[in-house]
Amino acid sequence: MLTLDKIYSAKYVLRQVIRETDIIRAPKINPEADIYLKTENLQITGSFKVRGAYYRMSQLSAEEKAKGVIACSAGNHAQGVALAAARNGIKSIICLPDGAPISKVEATKSYGAEVCLVKGVYDDAYAEALRQRDEYGYTFIHPFDDEDVIAGQGTIGLELLDQIPDMEAVIVPVGGGGLVSGVAFAIKKLNPSIKVYGVQAAGAPSMYNSIHDHKIERLDSVSTIADGIAVKEPGENTYNIISEYVDDIVTVTDDEISAAILALMEQQKLVTEGAGAVPVAAAMFNKVPIKGKKTVCLLSGGNIDVTILSRVIKRGLLMSGRSCSMNIELIDKPGQLMDVSRIIAELGGNVTSIHHERANEGAAVNGCYLRIVLETRNYDHIEQIRNALTDAGFKILNIN
Amino acid sequence: MLTLDKIYSAKYVLRQVIRETDIIRAPKINPEADIYLKTENLQITGSFKVRGAYYRMSQLSAEEKAKGVIACSAGNHAQGVALAAARNGIKSIICLPDGAPISKVEATKSYGAEVCLVKGVYDDAYAEALRQRDEYGYTFIHPFDDEDVIAGQGTIGLELLDQIPDMEAVIVPVGGGGLVSGVAFAIKKLNPSIKVYGVQAAGAPSMYNSIHDHKIERLDSVSTIADGIAVKEPGENTYNIISEYVDDIVTVTDDEISAAILALMEQQKLVTEGAGAVPVAAAMFNKVPIKGKKTVCLLSGGNIDVTILSRVIKRGLLMSGRSCSMNIELIDKPGQLMDVSRIIAELGGNVTSIHHERANEGAAVNGCYLRIVLETRNYDHIEQIRNALTDAGFKILNIN
Repeated sequence: MLTLDKIYSAKYVLRQVIRETDIIRAPKINPEADIYLKTENLQITGSFKVRGAYYRMSQLSAEEKAKGVIACSAGNHAQGVALAAARNGIKSIICLPDGAPISKVEATKSYGAEVCLVKGVYDDAYAEALRQRDEYGYTFIHPFDDEDVIAGQGTIGLELLDQIPDMEAVIVPVGGGGLVSGVAFAIKKLNPSIKVYGVQAAGAPSMYNSIHDHKIERLDSVSTIADGIAVKEPGENTYNIISEYVDDIVTVTDDEISAAILALMEQQKLVTEGAGAVPVAAAMFNKVPIKGKKTVCLLSGGNIDVTILSRVIKRGLLMSGRSCSMNIELIDKPGQLMDVSRIIAELGGNVTSIHHERANEGAAVNGCYLRIVLETRNYDHIEQIRNALTDAGFKILNIN
Repeated sequence: MLTLDKIYSAKYVLRQVIRETDIIRAPKINPEADIYLKTENLQITGSFKVRGAYYRMSQLSAEEKAKGVIACSAGNHAQGVALAAARNGIKSIICLPDGAPISKVEATKSYGAEVCLVKGVYDDAYAEALRQRDEYGYTFIHPFDDEDVIAGQGTIGLELLDQIPDMEAVIVPVGGGGLVSGVAFAIKKLNPSIKVYGVQAAGAPSMYNSIHDHKIERLDSVSTIADGIAVKEPGENTYNIISEYVDDIVTVTDDEISAAILALMEQQKLVTEGAGAVPVAAAMFNKVPIKGKKTVCLLSGGNIDVTILSRVIKRGLLMSGRSCSMNIELIDKPGQLMDVSRIIAELGGNVTSIHHERANEGAAVNGCYLRIVLETRNYDHIEQIRNALTDAGFKILNIN
């Protein structure tokens, strides 16, 4: 059974290994609440996962340590297990589906794990990990449904109670539920008046559905930018602890998550992965009742692929009117492109790409078709440019 | 004269206002050194500048406070002055050239300053600020060449001596020189064995030139991605302090700065502006002798425009082989595009944009021209794709 004793023991074991990550105020995320960030994205390995993995391994017998550990993950759990094993002098094997991004494979290897690529998807890699456990006697390190792992993650709850004792609410990402279970247990046992909310991605609401339907439910598929919390089925331990200790679970969409990632970069200078940003998304879009409350958003991790980050920024710029693309129909005569360019330049728009083509199917036979991508200041600015072009006689087919 | 007393006094004044920003280890920046980051990008206002501005204002007489302060800046100094003035209950006016980005104007206003847009460039705004000082009796808050401002920035030196007492070297960005003057003075007075290095942008090397030529020199123009340290002429105070206390000044290029910004995002989950990343660029590209040394890189700020950040990421991806664009010449017959697409897909390349055009001037009369942008894993992966396309008979005009 999970106990406070276990979480305090984990805190003691972890004291030399992990960083006590900083608390940073975030005044602009939701002006009606008093928001603070717990920056586990700045934890070693870029995620909280090393806490649970390390504590779990510290509890193995000498014989188990000698045999080694195995886990199945393409993400933060893999890196946490690899690092924790290396620090404990334990051999670790990480099973991954063979389609896993090479960057994840390299990161896992760089922390000292042996990587075993398994043909198929996650479930195949999982089955292979269990098979090797049975064949070679490795200890399987579950990513969330394990009391020692939960106790390790719970150390964040103890830190929060020390760092910001008058907090009134904590918002925590939920995938399999290991993090929120540990944090909620620690906080509620010591100060039950503090609210604990869990947040899932709308595209992977397994715990959300299970809690609201009062029974464990499995999803057939999951799809979200927050891959770190895209879990098909809750754990039994985590489901039970969450049922008892978490005040509510809500969901946020991928667009809301993208907006949160961008806000954290612009306002707080912090890079978060999708899973790490869901608490901020919930706070920004008023998914939880935190008005007037001193609230902690737990940024669980920052391991986001930079190509995905680049797409999130692009989408965020589009959504906030700071970039747009226009399709314009021109009459096919000299000087038209110059006129369009002049109008945009005079209004301070910054053209980043132009595609100019004669005889596009959508245009009149003697017309041509111009696609312009430009950097703008905001929606008003886009509207100004649109009006100036329309006033000059150009036909704008669409803007997006 | 600058004294340690003054810096200790600044530390006392600032204790309730600023954050003691965290120190974070950065194990991958330069594997031959032991690198730590001082995260002033996570300071309130996103930059260290608030330290000097606040302390300077705290030293004004009651009469001076009643009249108000004026400054000239489009960047971090403006936000530091605005916030410090608001917290001290002092009126502040910030003069800006009228071409300043609207985001900077809005940010300055949001901290409570009155913004005065001046027709022309920085030097015109500066002249107008001095004119208003003389006419209305405002106190002019210099961005760097002022002992109180320097003392405020020097508090970072005291914090470093507390946070990481066995450090052997500190690397500091240099624009006008206020930050490095304060930090070097504090550190050298207390522990002269610690090396202090300054870093400028190669496109704005005013202090670098002046120190190496042993006299203050003014640049006609500056051009760098690190706008926060693009200063044409060093201050007299800062020049003298740097001459005495800083071990060396080096420069880094914009490409090196971009690589540093990207590395800090990917490895450390931290957003820095160009000026804030120059110490890491110097450490990554071995511009300073830190081999085997416990070294602190001072990340001075994180206020980078997200459209610029987006360009930095794009350039970083290109430079590390994680995206590329190819121009391919096709024979104008059905199925060619499909063949190219299939070859790329089979090798795991991810196409993000295609431009397909018949009768391009550079192609044969019966040919056509295909421009593909794709996400790749690394240079080897690009080479694999190039070879597969060449083996299949396609002519690749160029790759970049």
